[in-house]
Amino acid sequence: MKRGKRSWMFPSPPVIRAAGTVVGPDEGAGPLAADFDLVHPTLDLGQPSWEKAERLLLEQAADIALSKAGLKKDKLQFFVGGDLTNQIISSTFAARTIGVPYLGVFGACSTAMESLALASLMVASGAAELVAAGTCSHNCTAEKQFRYPTEYGSQKPPTAQYTVTGAGVALIGAGGEGPAVTAATIGRIVDLGVKDPFNMGGAMAPAAVDTIQAHFEDTGRQPEDYDLIATGDLAAVGHPIAAELLRRSGIPIDNTRFVDCGLMIYDTSKQKVQAGGSGCGCSAVVTYGHLLKKMAQGELRRVLVVATGALLSPLSYQQGESIPCVAHAVSIEARP
Amino acid sequence: MKRGKRSWMFPSPPVIRAAGTVVGPDEGAGPLAADFDLVHPTLDLGQPSWEKAERLLLEQAADIALSKAGLKKDKLQFFVGGDLTNQIISSTFAARTIGVPYLGVFGACSTAMESLALASLMVASGAAELVAAGTCSHNCTAEKQFRYPTEYGSQKPPTAQYTVTGAGVALIGAGGEGPAVTAATIGRIVDLGVKDPFNMGGAMAPAAVDTIQAHFEDTGRQPEDYDLIATGDLAAVGHPIAAELLRRSGIPIDNTRFVDCGLMIYDTSKQKVQAGGSGCGCSAVVTYGHLLKKMAQGELRRVLVVATGALLSPLSYQQGESIPCVAHAVSIEARP
Repeated sequence: MKRGKRSWMFPSPPVIRAAGTVVGPDEGAGPLAADFDLVHPTLDLGQPSWEKAERLLLEQAADIALSKAGLKKDKLQFFVGGDLTNQIISSTFAARTIGVPYLGVFGACSTAMESLALASLMVASGAAELVAAGTCSHNCTAEKQFRYPTEYGSQKPPTAQYTVTGAGVALIGAGGEGPAVTAATIGRIVDLGVKDPFNMGGAMAPAAVDTIQAHFEDTGRQPEDYDLIATGDLAAVGHPIAAELLRRSGIPIDNTRFVDCGLMIYDTSKQKVQAGGSGCGCSAVVTYGHLLKKMAQGELRRVLVVATGALLSPLSYQQGESIPCVAHAVSIEARP
Repeated sequence: MKRGKRSWMFPSPPVIRAAGTVVGPDEGAGPLAADFDLVHPTLDLGQPSWEKAERLLLEQAADIALSKAGLKKDKLQFFVGGDLTNQIISSTFAARTIGVPYLGVFGACSTAMESLALASLMVASGAAELVAAGTCSHNCTAEKQFRYPTEYGSQKPPTAQYTVTGAGVALIGAGGEGPAVTAATIGRIVDLGVKDPFNMGGAMAPAAVDTIQAHFEDTGRQPEDYDLIATGDLAAVGHPIAAELLRRSGIPIDNTRFVDCGLMIYDTSKQKVQAGGSGCGCSAVVTYGHLLKKMAQGELRRVLVVATGALLSPLSYQQGESIPCVAHAVSIEARP
């Protein structure tokens, strides 16, 4: 395997054989609705708790991915997954249903690309033939866990982000049809001292920039090599900060090429989502739903997804800590 | 890479270049005290919160490992870590201090071997030259998060386990001196319906058995190929159950060879630890402190560590769920 300081370049790149995306009503009312496999009309999915609903999102996304690939569960060797809930119970309970060997991972909203990077490494190294990478989040499980009981209906500042209700699962295989995962860059913790949990985009922007810089250094690529560079969930506050920091670092990326999953998933001018989307499900459903579709249609050929994570907990915040942030980047390329 | 259904066999096995272990006062009063690098006389380590103390354990273990290997931090390429705290903040804040690219993982007490398996895969596949795998736990952070405020001094049933205050970090390198990581077997979720969070050993025993069986099937090995097979933290209730289940499955392992990290770390006849130890730090410090020392002294040549994890959360328990369990096994061998 070719490697840079923090990057893996896969000479025989693993393939995204298929993907499944499942979302809730707000995402179904957003501009990318048509790109998702399943849109639930209600937040509870008919389940008795938000947590059970979140788990179901992930289970359904895995089922859809397998069914689109025409594969049965027994072909799947590993599931790499994570989410925002304490002890990542959504992924774990979904892993119980999926029934294959399971590696739980956590990088807050960056988990989507952390799991894809690890699953790709497993396949590229010959450690597995077929691995599922999947993450999920649910607006109401995140609200009650990180902020206030959902029944409060508490107000939020405009810098806050709206946790996506959704799950995305990608099946990574050693060969077959589909776009290839050609490289991954693993992020380090960047913490510039931001302490406001209602401004996670601002806190995470420097982590995204750090990883994007490392990706270009390690791979010898430049922004123009990508049709699209999509940050995870920096949203309306963080994304312009990242763009400005990149400009100042001598890596200007033009606006048409530099986008954000948290801004794409909602119409922030009409939907009440404050600065935009976030959550482990956000970059997962945007990447596996929207971006892969654009690649299949020939509109995009090479995409870099830079999923960002704010690695705080309510307790670390209460103890006066700042927000450690991370970003993991994965390069996905259409094949001729 | 050679692989079985759920196992990786490393033909050019990565090497444990060095390890660091740091523990608290209870572990320092136990039978393995002399095997740990640093024993803290108090639980708070002079820190203002249990969480900050837990983080410090991990930071110190990493420092000790690097210093024993005679390496500076800049030689380290990745840190793979996790712990029991919500959003694994102990590992994340330690990763901020360590300053290298970071992959957060979670498998409850199995995280110790999950991180070692992944770090070994990264090195064995050529994705990295030197990776740190580390986990930690603290009795008081776990108590207050999973059970009751530590000030309550609430009573516990004898089936309960006592979370180890400790951190273990191993440096995995592509070559150099030290024992080798020759194989890893990734566990699937096993949940036989146990709902009692004060009997995690009983809940986890079938997961340990499932992974041990898979390990022998995948590798063609048998119990006699190992000098020691150490389960993570099944303790006094779970370990005999695992032994009995293995016997009934036609894989009897004699008592002298089949041990448990949660039983080794304390003197359960004298120390008030109920059924024995648990926590992400338990199998980490027993493996990286005690077992590696025995290997260096020539008393053990081939060891299989089967770290078990009870993947519940207080919320999943409150919602009436049973406890999904997992076990990951790593084979460590002394080299001539």
